[in-house]
Amino acid sequence: KIVGISEKRIRDIHRIKPTREAIGLARRFSLTSPFAQAVLDESDMVIGGVRGALLTIKDGYAVANAGIDRKNAPLNSLVLWPHDPDLSARTLRDQIRREFGKHVGVVIVDSRVTPLRLGTTGLAIGAAGFRAVEDIRGNVDLHGREVRITFRAIADALAATAQLVMGESSERKPFVIIREAPVKMESDSGVREAKLAWNRCLYMSQIMPPGHDQSQHN
Amino acid sequence: KIVGISEKRIRDIHRIKPTREAIGLARRFSLTSPFAQAVLDESDMVIGGVRGALLTIKDGYAVANAGIDRKNAPLNSLVLWPHDPDLSARTLRDQIRREFGKHVGVVIVDSRVTPLRLGTTGLAIGAAGFRAVEDIRGNVDLHGREVRITFRAIADALAATAQLVMGESSERKPFVIIREAPVKMESDSGVREAKLAWNRCLYMSQIMPPGHDQSQHN
Repeated sequence: KIVGISEKRIRDIHRIKPTREAIGLARRFSLTSPFAQAVLDESDMVIGGVRGALLTIKDGYAVANAGIDRKNAPLNSLVLWPHDPDLSARTLRDQIRREFGKHVGVVIVDSRVTPLRLGTTGLAIGAAGFRAVEDIRGNVDLHGREVRITFRAIADALAATAQLVMGESSERKPFVIIREAPVKMESDSGVREAKLAWNRCLYMSQIMPPGHDQSQHN
Repeated sequence: KIVGISEKRIRDIHRIKPTREAIGLARRFSLTSPFAQAVLDESDMVIGGVRGALLTIKDGYAVANAGIDRKNAPLNSLVLWPHDPDLSARTLRDQIRREFGKHVGVVIVDSRVTPLRLGTTGLAIGAAGFRAVEDIRGNVDLHGREVRITFRAIADALAATAQLVMGESSERKPFVIIREAPVKMESDSGVREAKLAWNRCLYMSQIMPPGHDQSQHN
């Protein structure tokens, strides 16, 4: 949130002109139509929704409301994700190195929901300076057998850890510092590494994208 | 995993007799048929799958392979979730209090995947001694407006934090201790509080349960 605000990724809700599509979505899912329009503008695709939230694809991730939030935004405005969250993370990492001489990894965090779970945890939307996804293919378990779950979402785990401490409402903790995290420092990495194809995703492979011919769906 | 093993929730794969349904699922999703049978036996519902994993409902949660794992299991065997993970967590909490005089919260952790994300983080499958879901309805943001994302999945955030340190293969860290976690200690709570109805879930509301009439699907 603080990164979106600092990059002036803010929209004035009174200056948003909702289209007919936005008005329809707003009515169907109990949203305001300027908010629905902003979500349409920000998302690659709107898949559907529940009361109060749209399921969208945003930068290749499946998130609520294209990451748009009214919480802790200036009055009558919406805060959007940074244009390129991995780039924002890289810029922050470089600034910290320049100003303080510290070599850090940076994670930009937003809230996420989990299938069939009440409540939010943290999701990494941008990362820099460390390996966002750890590849453990070929590692063996205690019995010497190769492990089958082969990647670890390190950036997301750090995001969940950070969000636990940062809170969601008026805690005024825009960032946290995690020390001694078991990560591999690496300069050229980012959350973009964590993208998974639709047909390899356990959840999304079960959902037909809008306009998909049902008779073709497996 | 360690909790399932200590409760002897282990199946010998050579003693599993796959049904025709299991053989079909195994062929379709590149699994062994005893493994597919064990998943069928453990799950409330099999929704579909991708290569190497089935999307199942298990104890009301949407997880891969009903939580069954071959990793770090005894040879030729599968480790299942505890029968009642919240109860297992409560038992552990009570034992720790009795043996060490320490008042702790306990989270039982398994790996989980995230929609359109590569890699696993931790998911809380059982919890005791603290508020698993924090209700922040009515809280206000920095500008005094009521927050709309109204629950925080505290147990899941702790699980993700723990899994970051525990690792996934041969790390031999069956448990971790988290100090000074910002949680509300409370005796009568559990992960069961974190269940969300299918039609309120952003992801699962988009998926038709097997046998659901498509013409009725919204």
